[in-house]
Amino acid sequence: MYSEKVMDHFTNPRNMGELENPSGVGTVGNAKCGDIMRIYLDIDENHIINDCKFKTFGCGAAVATSSMATELVKGKTIEEALLVTNKAVMEALDGLPPVKVHCSLLAEEAIHAALWDYAKKN
Amino acid sequence: MYSEKVMDHFTNPRNMGELENPSGVGTVGNAKCGDIMRIYLDIDENHIINDCKFKTFGCGAAVATSSMATELVKGKTIEEALLVTNKAVMEALDGLPPVKVHCSLLAEEAIHAALWDYAKKN
Ligand code: FES
Repeated sequence: MYSEKVMDHFTNPRNMGELENPSGVGTVGNAKCGDIMRIYLDIDENHIINDCKFKTFGCGAAVATSSMATELVKGKTIEEALLVTNKAVMEALDGLPPVKVHCSLLAEEAIHAALWDYAKKN
Repeated sequence: MYSEKVMDHFTNPRNMGELENPSGVGTVGNAKCGDIMRIYLDIDENHIINDCKFKTFGCGAAVATSSMATELVKGKTIEEALLVTNKAVMEALDGLPPVKVHCSLLAEEAIHAALWDYAKKN
């Protein structure tokens, strides 16, 4: 049911945790399942995402997509990070079953919310 | 949204993992969300559940209910364990939001499947 990459990022998630003084934080909820996701971004003066962490109450698919999404946005500029879509993350994970696509949206939405939080503060 | 006990059992789950030579194993899936749950039981010659572990791809509510359910069945007889209902587990966790009740059913179903697996083998 789940690809090897999904199981890898689920059992050994990258960037799980919090940042102490984040440049931006985004928290989103998923109405369909009631799960929540929070993303912390550390952005430097050149608008590069130096670090990125996530916390979630969501399922394995939410953990795996957040892990992959944080890997994909790290080192990118804000403009580049906005182009890391849910579709790109799912492709990098070799796909997800249709019933799990809504879980993978949490990471994209939380990253956008965190970038928006950063933009408002700056 | 979530009680302190739910957050405690989610962030610090009890009995997460596998058993090497289990007396019974139960694996169930949740059609609604695509999540999976596996319970391992170690049952002695007096029909007492000596040890119990779980693995899941499910969300925080599935983790918290499994953690509490495994705590509740440990040390019980098979007959007593069958009476540890989903409702009892939710009460022990001070409740769950309605959207998460279906997640909490995974643990009960997996325990029943593992007891059934044990019964078939003996
Ligand atoms: S079921 Fe809620 S995030 Fe996957």
